[in-house]
Amino acid sequence: MRWHPRTSDTFASPIVETQAWMRQVPLPPDLPLINVAQAAPSDPPPEGLRRAIAEAAMEDTSAHLYGDVLGLRALREEVAQHWSAAYGGGLQAENVAITSGCNQAFAAAIAGLCGEGDQVILPCPWYFNHAMWLDMMGVETLPLPTGADLLPDPDQAEALITERSRAIVLVSPNNPGGVEYPPALMRAFFDLARRHGLKLIVDETYRDFDSRDGPPHDLLADPDWDDTLIQLYSFSKAYRLTGHRVGAMIAAPGLLKEIEKFLDAVTICPNQLGQRAALWGMRNLSQWLAGERAEILARRDAIVAGFPVLAEQGWHLRGCGAYFAYVEHPYPASSLDIAQQMLARSGVLILPGTFFMPDGAEAGRRAFRVAFANVDRPGISTLFERLTAFRPA
Amino acid sequence: MRWHPRTSDTFASPIVETQAWMRQVPLPPDLPLINVAQAAPSDPPPEGLRRAIAEAAMEDTSAHLYGDVLGLRALREEVAQHWSAAYGGGLQAENVAITSGCNQAFAAAIAGLCGEGDQVILPCPWYFNHAMWLDMMGVETLPLPTGADLLPDPDQAEALITERSRAIVLVSPNNPGGVEYPPALMRAFFDLARRHGLKLIVDETYRDFDSRDGPPHDLLADPDWDDTLIQLYSFSKAYRLTGHRVGAMIAAPGLLKEIEKFLDAVTICPNQLGQRAALWGMRNLSQWLAGERAEILARRDAIVAGFPVLAEQGWHLRGCGAYFAYVEHPYPASSLDIAQQMLARSGVLILPGTFFMPDGAEAGRRAFRVAFANVDRPGISTLFERLTAFRPA
Repeated sequence: MRWHPRTSDTFASPIVETQAWMRQVPLPPDLPLINVAQAAPSDPPPEGLRRAIAEAAMEDTSAHLYGDVLGLRALREEVAQHWSAAYGGGLQAENVAITSGCNQAFAAAIAGLCGEGDQVILPCPWYFNHAMWLDMMGVETLPLPTGADLLPDPDQAEALITERSRAIVLVSPNNPGGVEYPPALMRAFFDLARRHGLKLIVDETYRDFDSRDGPPHDLLADPDWDDTLIQLYSFSKAYRLTGHRVGAMIAAPGLLKEIEKFLDAVTICPNQLGQRAALWGMRNLSQWLAGERAEILARRDAIVAGFPVLAEQGWHLRGCGAYFAYVEHPYPASSLDIAQQMLARSGVLILPGTFFMPDGAEAGRRAFRVAFANVDRPGISTLFERLTAFRPA
Repeated sequence: MRWHPRTSDTFASPIVETQAWMRQVPLPPDLPLINVAQAAPSDPPPEGLRRAIAEAAMEDTSAHLYGDVLGLRALREEVAQHWSAAYGGGLQAENVAITSGCNQAFAAAIAGLCGEGDQVILPCPWYFNHAMWLDMMGVETLPLPTGADLLPDPDQAEALITERSRAIVLVSPNNPGGVEYPPALMRAFFDLARRHGLKLIVDETYRDFDSRDGPPHDLLADPDWDDTLIQLYSFSKAYRLTGHRVGAMIAAPGLLKEIEKFLDAVTICPNQLGQRAALWGMRNLSQWLAGERAEILARRDAIVAGFPVLAEQGWHLRGCGAYFAYVEHPYPASSLDIAQQMLARSGVLILPGTFFMPDGAEAGRRAFRVAFANVDRPGISTLFERLTAFRPA
């Protein structure tokens, strides 16, 4: 009997792989690295939040001890209130689970929905950690190609559904595509999922940087939203808490009761200081976050405004929003080759589209994801200069 | 096609279940609760460690940002050095992964070893989160009964091995049994596992409270230890960091490379402040930890010394060490019934043996796990008084 462990069913983490490039590839000595590979703030949280963490560490005994599997009650209530105001509808704390980051929320949702051999529909390009987790759980990923606008089509999704299908996953604003899904499209996918008895998992990690005013969809205002919708969120980007690992899942209480088994067995509870940091952020940083959003939107504008020089060379801007631009290069070589050359010759670390696709998908060969959110506007100018000057070998 | 999600293959968390009792069962008004259900310190870490966390929160930017999937390099090095000194042998940082608690280390190990339908041998009574995870991963648990001394027998284990068997799991000092496995027994299981090409997973969460001096086994001194051994550890108990979720896995670098996929997809990285706390603890709290150990050993002695009054009533002390006593009650009712009665009538929260067994296992009906480590010596006296006075309905 051959050993066939779950981890052997998936690929190595693209982030880890590119970190290995960094150790192996000699960088150009005159060009400081521009890292647009990982979606992560590079600055710490604001001082007030850091102080709140420090005070909790010193004074709050419970911040060091086990807590509830589904998270800090006060944080669950805060999310429920905040979400009810933002999306309409009447969420309760019982609809909210706090998780050890948003990846874990996705992992738990899949464990609570799928068994071996079940299927999940994933628009493509996808967030690679989603695909990795599905692989490792023995769940078949059904790739749903997107059009030139990077938006998935509900009719195409419907054609993929079989009796083993369990869920459709949407990420909006999209990682890696940067596109914001229109409310009507979200509604169409919700209706499709409900009609077929599937769950609609919506990852809104980047919701705080959506360029639109008002709610990005009206699904949570549906009185029976929780028969179909599972929403995922991350506190990492809004409050610069990537190192603290705090995310959330919004779902039916019955499903949260099920995933409690998974969360208990994997981590017992989310870490307590991170949860207190998220709670303090939600209660005190609305104004600050509005400024962060304005800065990210300005960087997005800088990408759009600067792009014509690349367009002249045959590049395409396929999507741009929240943390990401999704671009196509004009060269015959694969994006994987070009990404490695770019690091060596231009000092730019960028993820090739092949990382966001099934193996061998042609669309990935042309594309890159540019995680521009942690590059300031002068840095974006420098990035354009380097991309414009770059020629592959 | 019926939905059969992974979470439906296992039981609800016993800790969560007993927390529900607490909400449902009216406690006796005159008796303050004695909680011997969860293995957790009830005091915060010492002030120096809390201050170190607070300082990192204020001053160390990297403490708020993503880190390496396999953990903080300095902590991995510290563990390698410390372990090499404690166990003999020459561990390197590449043999160490830091995880979001020891449960996650176990989860990752199983994902890196097992596929659907594989088997793992688990001595019984077992740590329930291990059984839950195996259930959810589609891995068959092969229960290995233990004798009156709660020690598993390698020959009995060998008789269970099939071509689908992948690993044997030992927990020493044992949860829930409290027994410390003799070095020769550890070696016998190691040899057995190696002979059959299996892995031996040894969970040493409670190693810091082992009553014996010197290394508890010599397996890490075997020059080829990592072809067979996977060791798990938790920083939670030693430094009172249960709420921070930091654990470790000691294994072959090749296996850690595989489980990096799992850890990346589930949590991206362990939380950074918790890792810094663990590192500070390892570097600064050896003396303090020696005092903690002495106190736990004194509590253990208090359990052993106080037990004869219960023994007169027909109770048995099956095992006692580290955080746990494993006891048998003299009543005809099941331990589950009696545990609920004890909460209602004696104000003692205790886990029944049925939580540590396969469904219906007769041995569980007689047994309780007493997590005495977080009850001081006067509290242990009170616990004995209540157990002695208790009569089931």
